[in-house]
Amino acid sequence: MAATSLICRECSSTYPLEAQFVCSRCFGPLEVAYAEHDASDVDSIRRRIQAGPRSIWRYADFLPLGAGSPTGSGEFATEAGLPAGGTPLVRADRLAERLGLREVWVKNDAANPTHSFKDRVVAVAAARAKELGFTTLACASTGNLAGAVAAAGAALGMPTYVFIPADLEEQKILSTGVYGANIVTVRGNYDDVNRLCTEIAGEREDWAFVNVNMRPYYAEGSKTLAYEIAEQLGWTVPDRIVAPIASGSLFTKIGKGFKEWIDLGLLEAAGTPSGLPAMSGAQAAGCNPVAAAFEAGQDVCRPVKPDTIAKSLAIGNPADGPYAIELARTTDGTISQVSDDEIREGIRLLAETTGIFTETAGGVTTATLKQLAEAGAIDPDERVVIVITGEGLKTLDVVRGTFECHEIDPRFEQFERVEGRTEVTV
Amino acid sequence: MAATSLICRECSSTYPLEAQFVCSRCFGPLEVAYAEHDASDVDSIRRRIQAGPRSIWRYADFLPLGAGSPTGSGEFATEAGLPAGGTPLVRADRLAERLGLREVWVKNDAANPTHSFKDRVVAVAAARAKELGFTTLACASTGNLAGAVAAAGAALGMPTYVFIPADLEEQKILSTGVYGANIVTVRGNYDDVNRLCTEIAGEREDWAFVNVNMRPYYAEGSKTLAYEIAEQLGWTVPDRIVAPIASGSLFTKIGKGFKEWIDLGLLEAAGTPSGLPAMSGAQAAGCNPVAAAFEAGQDVCRPVKPDTIAKSLAIGNPADGPYAIELARTTDGTISQVSDDEIREGIRLLAETTGIFTETAGGVTTATLKQLAEAGAIDPDERVVIVITGEGLKTLDVVRGTFECHEIDPRFEQFERVEGRTEVTV
Repeated sequence: MAATSLICRECSSTYPLEAQFVCSRCFGPLEVAYAEHDASDVDSIRRRIQAGPRSIWRYADFLPLGAGSPTGSGEFATEAGLPAGGTPLVRADRLAERLGLREVWVKNDAANPTHSFKDRVVAVAAARAKELGFTTLACASTGNLAGAVAAAGAALGMPTYVFIPADLEEQKILSTGVYGANIVTVRGNYDDVNRLCTEIAGEREDWAFVNVNMRPYYAEGSKTLAYEIAEQLGWTVPDRIVAPIASGSLFTKIGKGFKEWIDLGLLEAAGTPSGLPAMSGAQAAGCNPVAAAFEAGQDVCRPVKPDTIAKSLAIGNPADGPYAIELARTTDGTISQVSDDEIREGIRLLAETTGIFTETAGGVTTATLKQLAEAGAIDPDERVVIVITGEGLKTLDVVRGTFECHEIDPRFEQFERVEGRTEVTV
Repeated sequence: MAATSLICRECSSTYPLEAQFVCSRCFGPLEVAYAEHDASDVDSIRRRIQAGPRSIWRYADFLPLGAGSPTGSGEFATEAGLPAGGTPLVRADRLAERLGLREVWVKNDAANPTHSFKDRVVAVAAARAKELGFTTLACASTGNLAGAVAAAGAALGMPTYVFIPADLEEQKILSTGVYGANIVTVRGNYDDVNRLCTEIAGEREDWAFVNVNMRPYYAEGSKTLAYEIAEQLGWTVPDRIVAPIASGSLFTKIGKGFKEWIDLGLLEAAGTPSGLPAMSGAQAAGCNPVAAAFEAGQDVCRPVKPDTIAKSLAIGNPADGPYAIELARTTDGTISQVSDDEIREGIRLLAETTGIFTETAGGVTTATLKQLAEAGAIDPDERVVIVITGEGLKTLDVVRGTFECHEIDPRFEQFERVEGRTEVTV
């Protein structure tokens, strides 16, 4: 399925596979279009995937690399850079039991090289940027993307510029600066940062902003989450996906990944009217433009000023919000919002029942699963996959004060006095 | 190669496969003994490994599970708990070039579930503890082990007690407490903590201290690092391993892993007199008992009071120190020490050239590689593997102040003023 062009999502105008992200006719967003695979070739495609590397590059047939590249499809990509993808899908029986569900799986994308799903999208964007001859990698980030771009640049030997809101968690700034990135902190929120980067992208011709001028390629990387989940479930489609929504790109591309493989015959359609998993989106109440529009039955999102501990989801004006709403509606899915307290509880719930420590975004996702389960919105027999997009070590501050330690001298009788008395203060 | 007994490393007395760690005759340490594999069976062993899961359990034939267990060899282990192992081995050409070497690989064990190699050893110890009927998991830890035990307990549904020095990095305490572990902080150093835990292990019959009474099983988990490296290098043995030394257990078990597979015929011996890779150990100058003894030509280590930023290596009285010295000597290896400043530089060097962000222990390892390369102790044609045992997000404090950010308003002209002016202050 070689990439053939960029295509406007709104008016279907096509463009060459270059660094462009907006339709010059209708200003709609561009995405990558592919030549159709030959459906009679499904077995050989599956075998090629199974023989591939333990990373997103096993899905090179479905990624927009190699068009016009001297090294051919995917070849560059699989040999350089960080090994993104190939993250565990873990069955979470203790979490399921706690919520009265039968079968819950956790797709743990904190296991990526810089511990968020952003390594997937950056790997694709950076590989394409190299093919197109760009010399510098850049991004506008709510935090995780900055680390992923900085690390990818270090691995590939490319200088990087990352632009982040000035109030970001210190963990995310320190774990980006260590790679030698040029860090610009911007007094403003992510939407301000994004506007500035769009302007800079127009002025610096040899800079690849992974989520601005490289956005069509970047976004395709998220499809690999759907491919991996399906492959890890024995080439089947789960009944429901619960995933966070920031810009809405991850959420919609997971849907696109399943759809591509179902259309091709690599997967059987789910037993839902749409054939896709019910797509359940998760937002923080403090930054809920997509959830609010979904609840109100509207098609477009009204921008909000973010105020939430889930900073990696704090996009007040989400570019793919309308497409996320459409996907949730057409798959009988949902889009929910949860409070900061529920987010903290979600982090604890996931950690205590699975051993997986996620950042605030994963707290949003887990809290949304809990909310849906308690509301009876999930059939107890559904096979549900929750997508954990980032690592708890990056938002440690929200854990502080949620438990007690007992300090003693190294003497047995002091231990005996505190044994069994540890209290969880959450 | 089913486990058959525990055997004393000093006097070869044997014991049943229970929770015992010291020889009651000579007080030597116990390790696991196995029935010999049939060497004519090498091809089927290799095939069984290749068909196994992407975790340490693909090496179940070489791990001490299943003896007397109702579920049979390894069966419990592969289906429960966190997916330890299966971490990337990444070729680091930019790091090699910087150091004037030809071929350097990074085994990135920060990619484990709780981001250190301790998930390997805990997985084995916890699985064996379940088989032996223990109800509580516990440990004495310099930090990473605490998180690994807490997470494993959460995944397996077992309560946990972790004992740590009171001055540990806050990142390691927070990322342990989130799993619901009972945390006891001890006023003293690791050696004090360890003594206290040995006493408690004698008093609490249903507690499995993974690195005290379960130590023989626990230690075997480290062999999987050697197995994975060999498999990832196409079933070959590298010329040199650079790995950190705390207790010396990891270091010596990596040697044991290679030796087992060479003896069995799964691997060809390296082109060194010993047939093993040259084993290069790495310590911090602030906790250097093994390096100091090695340099002085002594066989035993003189305990030290640790004072280093590499807290995860801060064991002043290392149990396996003498065996580490013996291994380094018999393989024409080395044991080095590096200063805290060199550790910080090592973290930056690895991050900037590979995109891998390691904690202080990995800084020790990288700085040791640099020291050896600069001293001409490594033949430029050697194939070298450095073992990165933990994650930079857990020792973030040492990165603070090593780079600058530029804060601006979201306006292009402000960006132009700072562009190209980011200075690294290290």
